[in-house]
Amino acid sequence: MKDSAWERLGSYLKETQILGSIQNTLYWDQNTVMPKQGALWRAEQLAYMAKKLHQRNSSKELDELIKLAEEELIDSERIQKNKNLCKRKNIRLLNQELNRQRKLDPILVEKLAGAKSQGYESWQEAKKHSDFKIFLPCLKELIRLRIEEAKQISSELSPWETLAQPYEPDISKKLLSQIFTPLKETIPILLENIRLSNEEKWDLDPSSQKDLCSKLLDEFGREQELIAVAESPHPFSITLGPRDFRITTRLVEGKPFSSFLATAHEWGHSLYEQGLPSETHQWFAWPLGQATSMAVHESQSLFWENRIVKSKAFSKSFFRYFVENGCPLLDYQKMWRAMNMIRPGLNRVEADEITYGLHILIRTELEIALIEEGLDPSDLPYEWNERYKRLLGIKPTNDSVGCLQDVHWSEGAFGYFPSYLLGHVISAQISYELEKEIGSIDDLIENRDYKKIISWLKTNIHSHGRSVNAMELVKKVSHEDISPDYFINYLKKKITQLDF
Amino acid sequence: MKDSAWERLGSYLKETQILGSIQNTLYWDQNTVMPKQGALWRAEQLAYMAKKLHQRNSSKELDELIKLAEEELIDSERIQKNKNLCKRKNIRLLNQELNRQRKLDPILVEKLAGAKSQGYESWQEAKKHSDFKIFLPCLKELIRLRIEEAKQISSELSPWETLAQPYEPDISKKLLSQIFTPLKETIPILLENIRLSNEEKWDLDPSSQKDLCSKLLDEFGREQELIAVAESPHPFSITLGPRDFRITTRLVEGKPFSSFLATAHEWGHSLYEQGLPSETHQWFAWPLGQATSMAVHESQSLFWENRIVKSKAFSKSFFRYFVENGCPLLDYQKMWRAMNMIRPGLNRVEADEITYGLHILIRTELEIALIEEGLDPSDLPYEWNERYKRLLGIKPTNDSVGCLQDVHWSEGAFGYFPSYLLGHVISAQISYELEKEIGSIDDLIENRDYKKIISWLKTNIHSHGRSVNAMELVKKVSHEDISPDYFINYLKKKITQLDF
Repeated sequence: MKDSAWERLGSYLKETQILGSIQNTLYWDQNTVMPKQGALWRAEQLAYMAKKLHQRNSSKELDELIKLAEEELIDSERIQKNKNLCKRKNIRLLNQELNRQRKLDPILVEKLAGAKSQGYESWQEAKKHSDFKIFLPCLKELIRLRIEEAKQISSELSPWETLAQPYEPDISKKLLSQIFTPLKETIPILLENIRLSNEEKWDLDPSSQKDLCSKLLDEFGREQELIAVAESPHPFSITLGPRDFRITTRLVEGKPFSSFLATAHEWGHSLYEQGLPSETHQWFAWPLGQATSMAVHESQSLFWENRIVKSKAFSKSFFRYFVENGCPLLDYQKMWRAMNMIRPGLNRVEADEITYGLHILIRTELEIALIEEGLDPSDLPYEWNERYKRLLGIKPTNDSVGCLQDVHWSEGAFGYFPSYLLGHVISAQISYELEKEIGSIDDLIENRDYKKIISWLKTNIHSHGRSVNAMELVKKVSHEDISPDYFINYLKKKITQLDF
Repeated sequence: MKDSAWERLGSYLKETQILGSIQNTLYWDQNTVMPKQGALWRAEQLAYMAKKLHQRNSSKELDELIKLAEEELIDSERIQKNKNLCKRKNIRLLNQELNRQRKLDPILVEKLAGAKSQGYESWQEAKKHSDFKIFLPCLKELIRLRIEEAKQISSELSPWETLAQPYEPDISKKLLSQIFTPLKETIPILLENIRLSNEEKWDLDPSSQKDLCSKLLDEFGREQELIAVAESPHPFSITLGPRDFRITTRLVEGKPFSSFLATAHEWGHSLYEQGLPSETHQWFAWPLGQATSMAVHESQSLFWENRIVKSKAFSKSFFRYFVENGCPLLDYQKMWRAMNMIRPGLNRVEADEITYGLHILIRTELEIALIEEGLDPSDLPYEWNERYKRLLGIKPTNDSVGCLQDVHWSEGAFGYFPSYLLGHVISAQISYELEKEIGSIDDLIENRDYKKIISWLKTNIHSHGRSVNAMELVKKVSHEDISPDYFINYLKKKITQLDF
């Protein structure tokens, strides 16, 4: 029997997925175990895979396969007098991505690839010497090329919106402003009324930290045969196959909770991917089997990091393991407070739950200004520092801890930052609904009923894949539009709790 | 400027090498860190890579590129009035491999791929139940197909010789018999006069074993930025790029030297690959940049395992590290004896230096009988057991520890086994020359002058790549034809030493 057009398209996508997952394996290996001198050859392997993937994702063959599958679908719907919404959505997303790829001038694509890798290199150099001027020419070029890219792709969306779509499909500046403006107004007020924490100096030895990370994953119910764990310079989670998940963490000297919190965070990312509707290999390769947005992804990692691990109930239940591993804190309340130190700082990654949003607000405003409002890139350090002073009350002493701190812009990734804060917002709104449906998170933690939590998340969030976008997902779960109120209320409650 | 035909061929080979090294990365990951449930998808990734590699290695494009490069070479030689022997050899080896690939009927290639994977599966099942009958039908089919393959490839060599070529280029049954017959006669006589060792029960904890493996590699001078180390079910070494080498070991309960000796063994393999003439990425991809034969490869691993680590001098110099790690042996002489227990056993992998050759002689005779002399595969268990009784004085109690013990035949790999014993023979002959040129190995170990040893091996063995075959290499180094005498003399000397 001849394969249907749908099956042929599926085979094509599966081969693409095989290539993509091989690329991921190379990336995983590079960041966990590859000896340093392997870097040059690995870069050639990765460039080769990227080229092959780009060819597949923009090929005439794919175009043709999608068209035929679509025709076949319409015919069969006519006969069955029934619309297949899943298949329709798959086709729509495939067309959307193909158009994005094919609208671009190949010369621009090549220039961009060069500018990104040059940008990353010059950013590293600039950061090392804490000298923004080193990075400035590359940043200017990246902004110019990405604006050009946005214009080639869409005339309907604004350039920044177009660049943000791959991370956050269907996000608009208007919606973003509705969500972010209340946060910008409220968080500084919340901060004013907080007794800022003093950091106590202590540490855990590396083997204890590893043991605690392992115990944490066991507590959450990880399957050893499904998830592998390693260390890497920057923690990440990655999926290498429908039944092959990887998580990394890093040990940071003087930061005894760092590896533990990173493990919880990456567990959340991985759990989302594990719960995607990828029952079969075939499905794994279709758009609907993929994560819907970076904000939803972050909402899942932040849920496990903040709502679970940074809760008082969790400190209570896990304190004994910390004691066993040499933690000098006197009781679980101290452990909980140590994990929840509130203190405005310059560093986004190390920020607490309250101040984190301010770091993102600054970056979001600045990147929109750079892409759309004519902010001269030369003025970036000044604008960055001013905003930090205004919103967080502290001013970077140099560019390295200021506007050079994050990698994103160096690779031309504009539009990514909001996902982090949207993730906090979505996590709060989802958590509210979760508690309504299956009881308070604190009780669930006290009863160590992580299965119930995971099952709820899987049913209500993970299993939808890309059938809904982030905003639709929030509405589906909470029967309300996305709103910053849940996050603000959560922060207020947490501050009250911490003040006792 | 247009690329020369030679450069275009080089680019093609480099891309093949990129694919091959990606395949190796997948293999490495699979055996060191992949979670168990990732196996199914990994198999699909590997099948995809194998298909692509086969296409590249048998393509018309490659055929054409080789032809053009050859013509260009001949033209330039005519002008320069000088033969470029390196380039000629590269072309010759490329043609040889392409012909091998292209002579085969594609239907046979497909059948063989199926038979190999079925064979491997049924062998696992048969071994588990210690029942040769389960594996018998697959073995019969594998033998039938591989004989067919050999006939398609060559009418000059015998079928077994043809199958052995990829492992041991230019080996003949006649030469093999000249080398192996004296061993078959001598080793049993040597064994008769040995006081067999009694095994003492002791062990080292896993972290101590790991520490000792790491100290061993440091002692040998490994570069951390060039070589990564991991654990795997079966120790192996693999090259993932011109500057990316990997080594694994395994910890075996009750065998305190197992991981240590495996590390030395794999270090030897890796050192050979590190010393190949791969100065540039381009060169890495050409035949001359590759290992010349499995026997030479084994000679290098066996050198480090046996000549270095199993020597008395090495035990003397390393004993203190074993003591630090909880080794209960009383002095270095006891350690040396414990590492050199002589005792005929059923297991090839765990065999000592003296009896090891007998395991190989049995397998070599049997596979030649199966491929060329009409031995009925049904009779394999009987023939196997009889030969063990005759040569080693012990008889397997079941097929699992008998003729099902090795994986090779289950994947249709006939012609590989002799390489192990040839490796011993070559290692001995090379070591003799090494000692003549740079002094006794014992003295070099005592002075911890591993740099001198490595430098000698690199110059005299590694750097030749495939410019010479195993027999030519031995002659080049020792100014004599390959001969079993050096190995026999070494064994005699070792036995005398051990008897004191």
